[in-house]
Amino acid sequence: MNHKIKVGIVGYGNVGRGVEVALGQNPDMELVAVFTRRKPETVNIQTKVAKVVPINELEAYQEAIDVLILCGGSATDLPVQGPELAKLFNTIDSFDTHARIPEYFSNMQAAAADAGKTSIISVGWDPGLFSMVRMMSGAFLPKGEDYTFWGKGVSQGHSDAIRRVAGVKNGIQYTIPMEEAIEAVRKGENPKLTTRQKHLRECFVVAEEGADQAEIESTIKNMPNYFSDYDTIVHFITEEELKAKHDKMPHGGFVFRSGVTGMQEEHQQIIEFSLKLDSNPEFTAQVLVAYARAAVRMNREGQVGAKTVFDVPLAYLSPLSSAELMKTLL
Amino acid sequence: MNHKIKVGIVGYGNVGRGVEVALGQNPDMELVAVFTRRKPETVNIQTKVAKVVPINELEAYQEAIDVLILCGGSATDLPVQGPELAKLFNTIDSFDTHARIPEYFSNMQAAAADAGKTSIISVGWDPGLFSMVRMMSGAFLPKGEDYTFWGKGVSQGHSDAIRRVAGVKNGIQYTIPMEEAIEAVRKGENPKLTTRQKHLRECFVVAEEGADQAEIESTIKNMPNYFSDYDTIVHFITEEELKAKHDKMPHGGFVFRSGVTGMQEEHQQIIEFSLKLDSNPEFTAQVLVAYARAAVRMNREGQVGAKTVFDVPLAYLSPLSSAELMKTLL
Repeated sequence: MNHKIKVGIVGYGNVGRGVEVALGQNPDMELVAVFTRRKPETVNIQTKVAKVVPINELEAYQEAIDVLILCGGSATDLPVQGPELAKLFNTIDSFDTHARIPEYFSNMQAAAADAGKTSIISVGWDPGLFSMVRMMSGAFLPKGEDYTFWGKGVSQGHSDAIRRVAGVKNGIQYTIPMEEAIEAVRKGENPKLTTRQKHLRECFVVAEEGADQAEIESTIKNMPNYFSDYDTIVHFITEEELKAKHDKMPHGGFVFRSGVTGMQEEHQQIIEFSLKLDSNPEFTAQVLVAYARAAVRMNREGQVGAKTVFDVPLAYLSPLSSAELMKTLL
Repeated sequence: MNHKIKVGIVGYGNVGRGVEVALGQNPDMELVAVFTRRKPETVNIQTKVAKVVPINELEAYQEAIDVLILCGGSATDLPVQGPELAKLFNTIDSFDTHARIPEYFSNMQAAAADAGKTSIISVGWDPGLFSMVRMMSGAFLPKGEDYTFWGKGVSQGHSDAIRRVAGVKNGIQYTIPMEEAIEAVRKGENPKLTTRQKHLRECFVVAEEGADQAEIESTIKNMPNYFSDYDTIVHFITEEELKAKHDKMPHGGFVFRSGVTGMQEEHQQIIEFSLKLDSNPEFTAQVLVAYARAAVRMNREGQVGAKTVFDVPLAYLSPLSSAELMKTLL
């Protein structure tokens, strides 16, 4: 008899591929199928351990699957797909449009609660682990300041913005946190930091033949919202160099809470959490998989409806029993 | 009508004093009384906001108090006091004798569950926050290594050990993490580290008049368990200097998980959590107070018995509602 947690992946992009591999690191879980909008025969999954199924056949898998990990995008996929699938399956997703999270939560709650399913939304590292650290740290140190820095890492949104500039053939943008700012926070100086003082933006651009590089550089540097509030460095490189040196998706960042305690608020207390990730989508995937385990357990205990990372007891993330956790990790 | 969470403090040492001040940072909570084994008239509490009551009158406060924060020691106070009080009150404690946690949990569980009370044990930063980070990180990165470094900070146990040496009048010991070791972990080198490579021990010793300083130094450096496996530095100073420069209780430390992901385990992913605390007991107190809020909420929802930090959804730590948390912190 097989007691493994049976998982379906919906969407086979970078995060979906990461989930597939992450499941292999978790012997209590197994991949049942990858669901895709593409023609299944055109999708070759890395591990070969599961089948590829057209997404419109998903409903037939309700008995065979304990939890679906939704790996679609937040802009158009999840707002539609999430509530539909939450009626049929326990789900996990990494919905990350911060401003729309309350609306998405409410749609997922309506779908999942009625169906007796459990959906944990906005799982990953930001939103996700960074949110958890900010939330806890604020509860521990009510008198204090939060600081979040991102990077060094690739920002998809800023890379897309570069590629929309006339004369740009291809490009990538790295968000780089300012070391001086981080050090000031770490030293407890509680600096007031402008946008420019927190992050630097570095762009590697492939120009089309004959394009005016000076004009491209100026257009990028003056782009409102994306670049104009930052110091931005623009490098022009060849397509070959871009492919050779910039094909990774590293990311990471730092969350700080710098607070005070004591009768005269005389003691400074600094909490720091940081991530240094060679692969952003694979790390997100690893987090999604641990929360998939939690969703199945919560559902088995009757904790149904939409949940966020704030609602999940940490013990549910681990394959170890509470007794083992207490003995080895407390 | 007063809906504040009503708190009692049991034991008025450094942590108890920290809890008293921490409650002032949390407007949804209030201190009802400090309970002590000392004569109440000899205990002057810092904030003057509550009364001081002999500990044997505690039972009369069952209606007036929502949660007791137990600030006694793990060696002799909590093993006896914890299970007795867990029958009467919701409780929080920072029981930190790692090897005896399962036994203590089981005694607290028996006491609290029968009485319909909720007791969260072993709360603080290690055990506590460090345990949470180790546990989560291991679930996210099953293939990886854990590293924990402590300090720079005062170790009470090692300071006590110094003071037991013949010819020593007074002394203090700082545990110092080795910067090179931390850097190697941060760079993803996954070093194998000996005890000596992880921490340095620095002692400030006041010798009795006429004592043989060379012999004291040698005795300290060769003390098994405490110092012999470490590089230890011994400074001799005057009582005045000790009082002037070493009257603080700083501490902190670092927890790392260094793991790999990807089909060929080709991507390194590093999680780091660190604390830099001017006051160890005050920070512990801040954490205890947030968990006291959680214990009351869990109890109101019928989640009774003994709990650890692994069992508590993070949302319960915050005075904000789930909707506010989602909107502002997710």
